[in-house]
Amino acid sequence: MLKAAIVGATGIVGQQFIVALKNHPWIEIVALAASEKSVNSSYRKAITDTQSGALRWFCKEAPIEEIMDLPVQNATDLSTGGIDIVFSAVDSGPAKILEPLYAATTPVISTASAFRYEKDVPIIIPGINPEHMQLLKVQQQSRGWKGFIAPQPNCTTVGLAISLKPILQEYGLNSVIMTSMQAISGAGRSPGVLGIDIIDNIIPYIPGEEEKVQLETQKILGSFSGHSIDPATFKISSTCTRVNVRDGHTESVFFSTQKPCNVVGVIKAMREFSGSFVKSELPSVPQNMIIVRDDPFRPQPRLDCDADNGMATVVGRIREDDVLENGIKYILVSHNTKMGAARGAVLTAEVLIQSGYIS
Amino acid sequence: MLKAAIVGATGIVGQQFIVALKNHPWIEIVALAASEKSVNSSYRKAITDTQSGALRWFCKEAPIEEIMDLPVQNATDLSTGGIDIVFSAVDSGPAKILEPLYAATTPVISTASAFRYEKDVPIIIPGINPEHMQLLKVQQQSRGWKGFIAPQPNCTTVGLAISLKPILQEYGLNSVIMTSMQAISGAGRSPGVLGIDIIDNIIPYIPGEEEKVQLETQKILGSFSGHSIDPATFKISSTCTRVNVRDGHTESVFFSTQKPCNVVGVIKAMREFSGSFVKSELPSVPQNMIIVRDDPFRPQPRLDCDADNGMATVVGRIREDDVLENGIKYILVSHNTKMGAARGAVLTAEVLIQSGYIS
Amino acid sequence: MLKAAIVGATGIVGQQFIVALKNHPWIEIVALAASEKSVNSSYRKAITDTQSGALRWFCKEAPIEEIMDLPVQNATDLSTGGIDIVFSAVDSGPAKILEPLYAATTPVISTASAFRYEKDVPIIIPGINPEHMQLLKVQQQSRGWKGFIAPQPNCTTVGLAISLKPILQEYGLNSVIMTSMQAISGAGRSPGVLGIDIIDNIIPYIPGEEEKVQLETQKILGSFSGHSIDPATFKISSTCTRVNVRDGHTESVFFSTQKPCNVVGVIKAMREFSGSFVKSELPSVPQNMIIVRDDPFRPQPRLDCDADNGMATVVGRIREDDVLENGIKYILVSHNTKMGAARGAVLTAEVLIQSGYIS
Amino acid sequence: MLKAAIVGATGIVGQQFIVALKNHPWIEIVALAASEKSVNSSYRKAITDTQSGALRWFCKEAPIEEIMDLPVQNATDLSTGGIDIVFSAVDSGPAKILEPLYAATTPVISTASAFRYEKDVPIIIPGINPEHMQLLKVQQQSRGWKGFIAPQPNCTTVGLAISLKPILQEYGLNSVIMTSMQAISGAGRSPGVLGIDIIDNIIPYIPGEEEKVQLETQKILGSFSGHSIDPATFKISSTCTRVNVRDGHTESVFFSTQKPCNVVGVIKAMREFSGSFVKSELPSVPQNMIIVRDDPFRPQPRLDCDADNGMATVVGRIREDDVLENGIKYILVSHNTKMGAARGAVLTAEVLIQSGYIS
Repeated sequence: MLKAAIVGATGIVGQQFIVALKNHPWIEIVALAASEKSVNSSYRKAITDTQSGALRWFCKEAPIEEIMDLPVQNATDLSTGGIDIVFSAVDSGPAKILEPLYAATTPVISTASAFRYEKDVPIIIPGINPEHMQLLKVQQQSRGWKGFIAPQPNCTTVGLAISLKPILQEYGLNSVIMTSMQAISGAGRSPGVLGIDIIDNIIPYIPGEEEKVQLETQKILGSFSGHSIDPATFKISSTCTRVNVRDGHTESVFFSTQKPCNVVGVIKAMREFSGSFVKSELPSVPQNMIIVRDDPFRPQPRLDCDADNGMATVVGRIREDDVLENGIKYILVSHNTKMGAARGAVLTAEVLIQSGYIS
Repeated sequence: MLKAAIVGATGIVGQQFIVALKNHPWIEIVALAASEKSVNSSYRKAITDTQSGALRWFCKEAPIEEIMDLPVQNATDLSTGGIDIVFSAVDSGPAKILEPLYAATTPVISTASAFRYEKDVPIIIPGINPEHMQLLKVQQQSRGWKGFIAPQPNCTTVGLAISLKPILQEYGLNSVIMTSMQAISGAGRSPGVLGIDIIDNIIPYIPGEEEKVQLETQKILGSFSGHSIDPATFKISSTCTRVNVRDGHTESVFFSTQKPCNVVGVIKAMREFSGSFVKSELPSVPQNMIIVRDDPFRPQPRLDCDADNGMATVVGRIREDDVLENGIKYILVSHNTKMGAARGAVLTAEVLIQSGYIS
Repeated sequence: MLKAAIVGATGIVGQQFIVALKNHPWIEIVALAASEKSVNSSYRKAITDTQSGALRWFCKEAPIEEIMDLPVQNATDLSTGGIDIVFSAVDSGPAKILEPLYAATTPVISTASAFRYEKDVPIIIPGINPEHMQLLKVQQQSRGWKGFIAPQPNCTTVGLAISLKPILQEYGLNSVIMTSMQAISGAGRSPGVLGIDIIDNIIPYIPGEEEKVQLETQKILGSFSGHSIDPATFKISSTCTRVNVRDGHTESVFFSTQKPCNVVGVIKAMREFSGSFVKSELPSVPQNMIIVRDDPFRPQPRLDCDADNGMATVVGRIREDDVLENGIKYILVSHNTKMGAARGAVLTAEVLIQSGYIS
Repeated sequence: MLKAAIVGATGIVGQQFIVALKNHPWIEIVALAASEKSVNSSYRKAITDTQSGALRWFCKEAPIEEIMDLPVQNATDLSTGGIDIVFSAVDSGPAKILEPLYAATTPVISTASAFRYEKDVPIIIPGINPEHMQLLKVQQQSRGWKGFIAPQPNCTTVGLAISLKPILQEYGLNSVIMTSMQAISGAGRSPGVLGIDIIDNIIPYIPGEEEKVQLETQKILGSFSGHSIDPATFKISSTCTRVNVRDGHTESVFFSTQKPCNVVGVIKAMREFSGSFVKSELPSVPQNMIIVRDDPFRPQPRLDCDADNGMATVVGRIREDDVLENGIKYILVSHNTKMGAARGAVLTAEVLIQSGYIS
């Protein structure tokens, strides 16, 4: 069993890591870390509200019982001796400082955006861009680290990059236009989205989100040249909004391809693509990378975000688009806190283990 | 005072007509009609639930007291003698049969889609395409009617066509890509959208909506040739979804213009356009056809749909788009049951009165 | 394996029966029936929307594949030959006519209220009033039936009766005051609760609900005299409201006992009670009839309604009440469409099988 | 015109004060104060988000334009020279320190709970307990203040105390049992209720709320003895919950009276009571203190909370209750941020001005 530490363990993403690693056959949690104010107590005590006695545990799934008695260490002082993987669930600010400390000795899989846009840092989605893993070696050399930092994509990027991959492969992509309707769990809890702001409403702006989605999609679908990644050259533009949905980002996508394509071909490409990677024997791999629904009323976030344990991207309403050249439009739903965060990071860890990057 | 009949008076759109005509300085309601099962009683009785005694009145605004004692007539037998305008709030099926009966003698303003796509029928938005009113004369001649049918656009078309008009004028339009996030009040009450379907969810399909929006926007923004309308030639593609918002459709729009344009120019065009028509002295005219918000978190449907009494289209997040040629993207909110339905129809009636088409 | 028919199979409760019987070790579905308009086709065809091709399947869990090809029979003509149990999911009106037809030969477990208040009809909650099963024999004799009708309680009654049972046993009950906050799935789909009515709102009235809850709770907690049930003598008063929650009824309960009682005693009584019945080896039995939460922020319907597969009643905030004599107050959450409907009915079937009433 | 200062002006309650005083005929805002971090800038700048440029203005109504350029002072240093009234919208912690500073010279009307339970502090609801104003004199003497502190009740208390007042007067009250379903705007914004916690959910606990409601209702409905208030002697018990409603607290009330009473009498008492106080010529007085609805589906928070500008308590479903002696039950809706907060405080200021306590 590989030994894992979770940093940012008291927050919502940290807790999702704890759930994602429950009964994991390859990885066990041996250390928890958080910011200074939570340390020097058991995990149970650290997440107990002192006034009401209530447990500040935010996942529907119950916590791992053994975890509750682990001590919570100060993230700044966390010793990586005996740790094989660090899962980092902290915000981008602290990530910038903390993650290099750990990466000096140990692989770090992170949900923070802090290092995503650095030249020597790949954004890996298992099954989509496995060759980008090689950039981790470049990173190790250039930074003199024994470990590395492997950040997850933004939760809004994940479903988009996955569903575009078979199109890119089969037809080449000219351009992508996307409008997202994002779930509130994506904003976390500090501060998160207030009920009085989102009830009976849409918030049409998520600072920084559109830039992230655009950059990351091009990077993830780019090609590895041997020492760096050349971003994909298709143009991409997005508008990101917040809607009153708890879990599951919905995206309305329009794309233009280089070669002529049609609805039947796109459905076929997506369905066939879905089957290859998932034959790998990774514990968290979904049965399908992409599920294409025929029912025109699907995908719906409440009904579809949990497909394949929240790890599949569910696509529907694939139709021709008259505006773009070789244009097709579709809708996707992707679970923003499962494939789009902690579970996706665990899947990345698995593929890195399988490929020998973590051992 | 012009005498008006409301057909479909017991439904939610009919009730919105009653509210929209409250204290109207030019128009008074003198007749109410509905389907057979509601007739032969006062309006109050027709909308009273016999089991619970509750009033099936669906608007937040109180009904007009005098209306409550008007008899409800059978829509099929409604005599238009003494009626100057018929406001039709029935569904498309009955509209196909009923509206020509009335139009033989009397102007009909309708929220139904039944006649929108006929060659000799204009879709009038006051302030946007006043010259299309002339097609009503062609209609009268071709059909041998003394009255006419003037349908309102679909509620999703209204805000889109209004906000694109100044762009078309100033820069010419190549193409439009739009994703809507539509309020549930747009689906009405029979059957409407069930709470269990829309809570914590998005429904990604509204049958027929996308075709309507595309056809209508091109028709409304088309040019009147003297005897017919040549649809605008820009290409348009949309994806229409239903979100958990009560009132106010939100639309994410991307467009490409013929002439080069930029954000400053688009804002200026929208703001200047807004001011012209609204100087007309129509009772229901908004202060602004288009309100452009600088705050990037606006427009929000709950905060903005009631702007100018629900008659303004509120626009925000105007930014450059890298995908389309001369591309710009923005978000709009438009009140689907005010400017997008009954109040919009009353405004159309006003402009037709002012122009001598109704008297 | 016992052979079951589901009547009302195309509706939402019928579909919940199909899900509740998926992989059931004792019962298999062999026949499906519905109202006339659905018949003469496979189940798949009967629930396919002809216009859009969408499946009108309303459960989150997938349907049983083998069921999809079963023919849908006309409920009026359903032959009970070869059927061991009929699960009836029809409305109260048709239930009044249909259920006696089946009961002449076959046991009927019903979610309809049609027969709940008849003298010779018990309302059985497994683990709560097993002795009431004996009234079925009286029913068979008085009506000359080989089968019987065993109706489930109203979904709002279930959690209340279960949580009060240990209190009644331990302390005796004087009176109960309850305010419910009921989920919208309890209203079903025809017509159900419209999104525009319940969004950002509470509906303070559910016709007939309060009377049902009061009568049924007294009947369920009453005593079987050998040939009839003497309702429990405590007084009970309720106010039932509808809130914007999909699944899980929440109830705020105040009660007064005959013997002095206190918070510690009530918690103990509930926790001990919970353990007895559940040791029975019934396939659908929950691990706990009642779960008592210490966290004062629980139970919450979204977090707790699925406890023990939706079969447990989750209780919290047990505190002293100063108004009533020996007063205690608490909050409960109970899954209205699982223990409160189809799954609860399947559990009743299991206990009737185990006791020899169905074979 | 009396000169007012608003303390806590940048928060949501402070902003509601600004809106409540818009165009007020007797009172004008001349000073704004907030905590240290907001000071030394104009109000506009203080509420502008530096990153996005968005205005952190939380009311649907637009701000008063003249207010935007007022400087924001440090609440600790606020000089009350030239100020006739201080409206305090700060939290209970700072209120404890700040309000006595102001009260030394100036009347303070506060929405904070800090002083509500002190012997010499009345909780005034205009029209309900005008004689309690006299306790302010006692307070001034005992504390040696020229001003005084007059706190508003908790938002959940307001509607309850108002609707019980005519019952107490007419029949005497034995006991009250209440379950609240409270709107999320009552929790404010720091931290407020997160969307991910309240969507599709109920939170069954609001720390401290039940104790407040119980104590305050007895105090408000108590009698002034000449130098102190004797709390009303009826017993009262409540369970307070949070529901997914933006504005408007709903309460399910059961009460027992000393004299026999019935539904007709209770309705009559409420309707007659409603009319007396409201004849006073106060600018913010509602047309009705209590509105009794006959429609059993009312009151609903979304439809009724704004009745009489959010200042009326709307009551419905008045029915007999079988559990309590002379028992009656009903439902009420009261606007928690209008009559229940800033607007209610302004009404209190008006009645204190009219009675000569503020000049």
